[in-house]
Amino acid sequence: MRIEHDFLGEMELDDASLFGIQTLRGVGASGVTGHSFGQDGMVLIRAIAMIKKAAALANLEVGGLDRTVAGAICKAADEVIAGRWNDQFPVDLITGGGGVSVHMNVNEVLAHRASAILSGLDVHPNTHVNMGQSTNDVLPSAMLLAAHELLEEVCDAVEELAEVSAGKEEEFRDTVKLGRTCLQDALPVTLGQNFSAWVSFLRRQKDNLKRLAADCLELPLGGTAVGTGAGSLPGFKKAVFARLKELSGLEVRAAENCFDAMQFGDIHIHISSALKALSAGLSKMGSDLRLLSSGPKGGMGELILPAVLPGSSIMPGKINPILPELVMQVHFLVCGNDAAVTMAVERGELELNVWEAVVTRCTLDSCRLLSRSIVLFARRCVAGVKADVGHCREEAEKSTALAAMIAAVFGYEAGSRVAREALSSGRSIREVAVDLGLLGEEAAAELLDPARMTDGEQMAQAIAEARNRYSSGPRG
Amino acid sequence: MRIEHDFLGEMELDDASLFGIQTLRGVGASGVTGHSFGQDGMVLIRAIAMIKKAAALANLEVGGLDRTVAGAICKAADEVIAGRWNDQFPVDLITGGGGVSVHMNVNEVLAHRASAILSGLDVHPNTHVNMGQSTNDVLPSAMLLAAHELLEEVCDAVEELAEVSAGKEEEFRDTVKLGRTCLQDALPVTLGQNFSAWVSFLRRQKDNLKRLAADCLELPLGGTAVGTGAGSLPGFKKAVFARLKELSGLEVRAAENCFDAMQFGDIHIHISSALKALSAGLSKMGSDLRLLSSGPKGGMGELILPAVLPGSSIMPGKINPILPELVMQVHFLVCGNDAAVTMAVERGELELNVWEAVVTRCTLDSCRLLSRSIVLFARRCVAGVKADVGHCREEAEKSTALAAMIAAVFGYEAGSRVAREALSSGRSIREVAVDLGLLGEEAAAELLDPARMTDGEQMAQAIAEARNRYSSGPRG
Amino acid sequence: MRIEHDFLGEMELDDASLFGIQTLRGVGASGVTGHSFGQDGMVLIRAIAMIKKAAALANLEVGGLDRTVAGAICKAADEVIAGRWNDQFPVDLITGGGGVSVHMNVNEVLAHRASAILSGLDVHPNTHVNMGQSTNDVLPSAMLLAAHELLEEVCDAVEELAEVSAGKEEEFRDTVKLGRTCLQDALPVTLGQNFSAWVSFLRRQKDNLKRLAADCLELPLGGTAVGTGAGSLPGFKKAVFARLKELSGLEVRAAENCFDAMQFGDIHIHISSALKALSAGLSKMGSDLRLLSSGPKGGMGELILPAVLPGSSIMPGKINPILPELVMQVHFLVCGNDAAVTMAVERGELELNVWEAVVTRCTLDSCRLLSRSIVLFARRCVAGVKADVGHCREEAEKSTALAAMIAAVFGYEAGSRVAREALSSGRSIREVAVDLGLLGEEAAAELLDPARMTDGEQMAQAIAEARNRYSSGPRG
Amino acid sequence: MRIEHDFLGEMELDDASLFGIQTLRGVGASGVTGHSFGQDGMVLIRAIAMIKKAAALANLEVGGLDRTVAGAICKAADEVIAGRWNDQFPVDLITGGGGVSVHMNVNEVLAHRASAILSGLDVHPNTHVNMGQSTNDVLPSAMLLAAHELLEEVCDAVEELAEVSAGKEEEFRDTVKLGRTCLQDALPVTLGQNFSAWVSFLRRQKDNLKRLAADCLELPLGGTAVGTGAGSLPGFKKAVFARLKELSGLEVRAAENCFDAMQFGDIHIHISSALKALSAGLSKMGSDLRLLSSGPKGGMGELILPAVLPGSSIMPGKINPILPELVMQVHFLVCGNDAAVTMAVERGELELNVWEAVVTRCTLDSCRLLSRSIVLFARRCVAGVKADVGHCREEAEKSTALAAMIAAVFGYEAGSRVAREALSSGRSIREVAVDLGLLGEEAAAELLDPARMTDGEQMAQAIAEARNRYSSGPRG
Repeated sequence: MRIEHDFLGEMELDDASLFGIQTLRGVGASGVTGHSFGQDGMVLIRAIAMIKKAAALANLEVGGLDRTVAGAICKAADEVIAGRWNDQFPVDLITGGGGVSVHMNVNEVLAHRASAILSGLDVHPNTHVNMGQSTNDVLPSAMLLAAHELLEEVCDAVEELAEVSAGKEEEFRDTVKLGRTCLQDALPVTLGQNFSAWVSFLRRQKDNLKRLAADCLELPLGGTAVGTGAGSLPGFKKAVFARLKELSGLEVRAAENCFDAMQFGDIHIHISSALKALSAGLSKMGSDLRLLSSGPKGGMGELILPAVLPGSSIMPGKINPILPELVMQVHFLVCGNDAAVTMAVERGELELNVWEAVVTRCTLDSCRLLSRSIVLFARRCVAGVKADVGHCREEAEKSTALAAMIAAVFGYEAGSRVAREALSSGRSIREVAVDLGLLGEEAAAELLDPARMTDGEQMAQAIAEARNRYSSGPRG
Repeated sequence: MRIEHDFLGEMELDDASLFGIQTLRGVGASGVTGHSFGQDGMVLIRAIAMIKKAAALANLEVGGLDRTVAGAICKAADEVIAGRWNDQFPVDLITGGGGVSVHMNVNEVLAHRASAILSGLDVHPNTHVNMGQSTNDVLPSAMLLAAHELLEEVCDAVEELAEVSAGKEEEFRDTVKLGRTCLQDALPVTLGQNFSAWVSFLRRQKDNLKRLAADCLELPLGGTAVGTGAGSLPGFKKAVFARLKELSGLEVRAAENCFDAMQFGDIHIHISSALKALSAGLSKMGSDLRLLSSGPKGGMGELILPAVLPGSSIMPGKINPILPELVMQVHFLVCGNDAAVTMAVERGELELNVWEAVVTRCTLDSCRLLSRSIVLFARRCVAGVKADVGHCREEAEKSTALAAMIAAVFGYEAGSRVAREALSSGRSIREVAVDLGLLGEEAAAELLDPARMTDGEQMAQAIAEARNRYSSGPRG
Repeated sequence: MRIEHDFLGEMELDDASLFGIQTLRGVGASGVTGHSFGQDGMVLIRAIAMIKKAAALANLEVGGLDRTVAGAICKAADEVIAGRWNDQFPVDLITGGGGVSVHMNVNEVLAHRASAILSGLDVHPNTHVNMGQSTNDVLPSAMLLAAHELLEEVCDAVEELAEVSAGKEEEFRDTVKLGRTCLQDALPVTLGQNFSAWVSFLRRQKDNLKRLAADCLELPLGGTAVGTGAGSLPGFKKAVFARLKELSGLEVRAAENCFDAMQFGDIHIHISSALKALSAGLSKMGSDLRLLSSGPKGGMGELILPAVLPGSSIMPGKINPILPELVMQVHFLVCGNDAAVTMAVERGELELNVWEAVVTRCTLDSCRLLSRSIVLFARRCVAGVKADVGHCREEAEKSTALAAMIAAVFGYEAGSRVAREALSSGRSIREVAVDLGLLGEEAAAELLDPARMTDGEQMAQAIAEARNRYSSGPRG
Repeated sequence: MRIEHDFLGEMELDDASLFGIQTLRGVGASGVTGHSFGQDGMVLIRAIAMIKKAAALANLEVGGLDRTVAGAICKAADEVIAGRWNDQFPVDLITGGGGVSVHMNVNEVLAHRASAILSGLDVHPNTHVNMGQSTNDVLPSAMLLAAHELLEEVCDAVEELAEVSAGKEEEFRDTVKLGRTCLQDALPVTLGQNFSAWVSFLRRQKDNLKRLAADCLELPLGGTAVGTGAGSLPGFKKAVFARLKELSGLEVRAAENCFDAMQFGDIHIHISSALKALSAGLSKMGSDLRLLSSGPKGGMGELILPAVLPGSSIMPGKINPILPELVMQVHFLVCGNDAAVTMAVERGELELNVWEAVVTRCTLDSCRLLSRSIVLFARRCVAGVKADVGHCREEAEKSTALAAMIAAVFGYEAGSRVAREALSSGRSIREVAVDLGLLGEEAAAELLDPARMTDGEQMAQAIAEARNRYSSGPRG
């Protein structure tokens, strides 16, 4: 046991612990999520440690620290970044006080390790490790660096799913199927067109997330406690950004207005919303796959999803759409996180937003849920989707909605008459159109070919020709 | 290594693992939260295991299982309930497929252990452990039992805070202070009245949560796959409820309409909302404590909160309202969980709600966040709240809002005149009222005594007397 | 034009306007929703007016007002309640300041009308109409009375839908159909069982809403500005509740703890959540109807919904599930309102919650959306639902999930074998079971009869008999 | 009365109504919000009418319509756009069926008016007005055009507030005040720095909204029913975009992937989120103004807000922060709308998102709430904010947090010692630092000057000088 003191008094610490009294106090006053930074939040700890290293180098440069102390802090930071001390970050993901506990946890571990490295010299967590810094500029900066890393991971997963989907677009280019709106039979599309929509959607979300990841590199670092930068040495801010840029290899830059950056966390709403827009689309994809693979006998039965696990403890042979259901559930959770992030951001108050712990927990969770579920969805589900091509084609041909083409040539009332007759008799639009004498067999085959209907321009030609043959000039 | 097979094929399993092939498949198709049931969800696993034990006893009773097999299953269930095999539940909190993976995880562990106990006899996870049951009735039932347990824990925490608050109500019974509406000076209250509101609020939430905990004891158990109960033996449902009641010591009862209970998860919205109503109030309490303890010099400075940890890495001596901020953040997270639960419940579909994993994760999280943070808040913050009694009294006396009493006696226009004069001159309402000749010194002291104003009936007497003395009969 | 003055100065008012200067100021400082209380919120105005009448009578009783003035105020209140002056409430639904503007709008209209009735005597909006009252106790009380009325309307609508659904339960008692979980074929149910779940769900929500409506009758009236009641005359509180009870015919009662009732608006979260739980279930019903009526050719096609309007501007003959989609959208809106209500309630602050305007707007909106959409859904959709009985039956018989009954008799592995064979060969479970020699024709017909499977007890007998015939005693 | 028929039968219509049978059916099957498009949604109607005009011109160009009919449709559309027929759009904002009712409402009004213009010729709502179009491409396109217009209005309001705030930044450039984090005294800032954060935040939101407004100009028009474009004539799509660009003066362009644009409404989540990020910041501003103007005697009292209306019906002289509370409430409502929009977007299904009515209602509401409240906030509140300069300065000087500068020069432990002594003795940091002999009077005045502390670079020089004088080189 060793004794440490702080502003409030003394506490006993285990000799083996690298963290100190403030960490211990933080642990005692939290623990509500049951998940510590060492377990779930090392991405943030690493980002703080990198800032600490950059700050030590900057303070060396501007005369605040000597080479020995700065070097020891850097070495300690490298150890933390390398994951050597993950068990030394017991602070819970959620604490009050604007993140002081987790910040001091890093300061204390680095000071303790640096002191050990220097065997004898006393490196102080506040005086040295935290020189010219405040929780209020370091923590938001570290959160943005962590968010940058997490968003890049999400982008990689999105790109993987986009590529798998592009493969499906190609594979099902000619698979004509029934389109549906309001779950009712509509005009035909190809299954490839369905997947082309996915690809288009996914690439757009990726671009959006990439843009936001770049925005994350504008940091309030150097603002210290309230945005003014008071407390640091001349030249520190410029130096710390130069060092951080080198260490991270990222285009980090100082926030144009530090007061703004520390008070208004709108970027976190933008990030959370962008993740939500992504997850909403994934959920829509999952929901569509569930619908189209419903059955095997009593559903739409157009798609067959890869079997992942037996789907029932009581009904042998049942297979469930596990991974579509996974991405749907991820969406629900991402929406929940978004609600919490929104509340936390809005509560920014005077010079600071002190609710960043909520933002961190929720953004971490959303990003991981998405990265991991998207990869599973791509590999274990989408990549293996098969189509019942014959069934798809058959349903497309039966659709009463084909009457829209009759309407396009002969007017809505004629289309309506054909549709009514088809519905009541159970015959196809094509049969009825021929029977009623509107179209000849051949013309009907051309005008009402589902495959042609999936190509707007080809179909426009077919309509124009039919209008020329059966109708007389422009409408009036 | 051992080989197991299921409907989809074969897989290798580590000899030491008690779980089997379906668990392994489930693990491979999930992992997105990074938290397994063994780590974070044993409350659900224990509930499932208790149901399994009750089912084994019931199947013994109705002739489905013999004494040996039933006994071995019971013994295995007891081990799980005792926490002996927590590391054997690797399935992630979130999976697709309506919870089959976690259910089969329990079935497999029990079967494996039962077989080991019987050394030689093969107890089957589906045929024996799951006899007459389905994921679709077992899992929702287990969730409700888990929710019951978690809600009781929340209630205990709420009661602790209510008791601490009741102590403060007593302690500050005579501490007169300024009341504020829209953050502007209003009529006086006592600090005891503030805490009486807390006690009243907390006890009402506790009652509400207790009511919901009782509702959790109505279970769809016995409904099997779709609510009809098909697949079980004659008498099973009655027997399993009798056994479960004995084992749990709880007033469990069969859902009146199993179809309803399996499709509509409204109880989970009710629970989540009740937790949200509680956390909203706690957040309001936290927010009020922050306001009233703001300062120490540049704020309201009426309350002094116990110091929990140094509040800044750069500003020595700063102390933050850590625990009020903790309960506020818990509220944000509980709201996020509520949003997710709502989405999951609404998506119930045809015969089943298959999104229960989201409900489980979020309800677990909300309950724990609340139980733990409330206890910390009660013990480490509320219990130690102190008041600056002199400052409180002084502010109450200065309030221009006391002009309301002038208005009550002389009409609104007179009150308005006094208020205007007091605001422009910086004098108190009492001074102005006397100066303007409305009241004598003594009458003013009685009518404008902040302490009296905190007691409506006493104040009514004072107003009535003043009206009698200075005014003439009823208004008209 | 006439000139009025208040604490801040003078303004011109149109001679015809019954409202006064404070209303005019309120109108000038709001208008953001574009909807006034006169257009959309008369339910609240009427409730305030009724409280004003009760207060006038109470003040008469306790000697605050004489008979003439009290009488004129009562008469004016009656006019407002009767809807005579709806165009005199121009204040927007959302204003800052805790509702002072709408409250003063009523005070001013009543004072103006009362003065006119007394032709000459000056009845003052604050001194007389508002005697012994504050916005802070009147407005929350009026909101609760309005909520009570709105909830009762919702309950009536819910009961109507429950009755229509009960009719369908009866109508489809014997319509056997495929059950589905995860959108995959499962065991059979009857369509009547589906509707029985609706009835059960709806009646439970109604009970819940009735309970909350009763809770709404506990009012903070009498608390005046901060809950103490300071500013009223002796006996006023008792009298005003007695009068209000008579006028309203409702069991109104004073809040046990006025401080609590004015600070913590948890009841509004409970109400909003209960509406959300209801709308979530309605959305689930709507979603199920859409699924089951999908087609007419390329979907599940089990149900036929009444046609309400042509479903497309381009595809003649297309009919959409308009009303199921209406209730689903209502759910989305109710959830949005719930999010806003939650934020408003949590922000209660010190002695008061000043965000009640948000609660009022959102609760009003949710209740109306629900009342109106439920009635349309009941009458124009559910009442006319028809089933394709033959198709329902056929799908139920084809389900591979019937293998669960094989498993119940012969164990899971046997069931699994039959299911695999059925899936690969395209034959029914019954055919395969007979072919494999597990069951004779007759026994198969009994054990695998979908209709019997919808009755758990009958099915249990069938399983027990088959086990007796084909198997040997309890499992081991 | 006149009789009209459609696919489902006949109905009577008032002779005076320009709308027809499908509108009437739509009105009968909705009405749940109580707000029609004619009252609240003309921005959408005008956008549809402009598309209809562009389509008529395009169909004239490609030979689908003759000059007479096309001309009459254009004239009718001009009338609608000019607001002549607002009372002819009775369809409720929320209907089921993917917006067919409101779309047909426009088609019918235009057809009826065009027929009247041509006195005798029968212009058909579907055959002519809707030629080559579908609700599924027209409505989403019109929504985007409406969103574009609404977003531009919000941007104008944001710019106005930014300009007013920039004026305040200038006005309060030298007003030194206490900074606060966690509501506890921290280092000083200037009031101008506070407003500079507002300006920076607002301009960033404006840029973001402008970017999204530009994204709104990518339209799925031309996709017809399912994205393929089937049903239109050769060249129509190109022509309709050319005409729409001319008519609107906007850079409208065809969606790159129409399937994507009709299924995935992510742009609406992006818009809603951007509005939410804006409103969150406004709410933070409002909340800060409330805090800083709290009092007048029992609060922070740094700012004086313009009085807008008397703040109480019972307490004369009370003034509330009406407009800060307005923008806070707008935020709550915008968050509610965002929750609803998110749910509606996620439910996109197969070829279409049919929940756009919810998106339209909510986006309309959020944009208007924001545009209107921001302008009120800027003009009636922010523009008139005054500061109590002396009080601000005094509080800044008293802050114990100034000990951070002692720590920057002498190390954290020294700072801590000074802070402890200052807190316990009630003296200022400056007094204690001099008393303890750490600094001379003059050096203390320089190092602990609050004004200098608001400029990080100046302060860095002061710290460096003090370190040089009192300390010895870099730390170690």
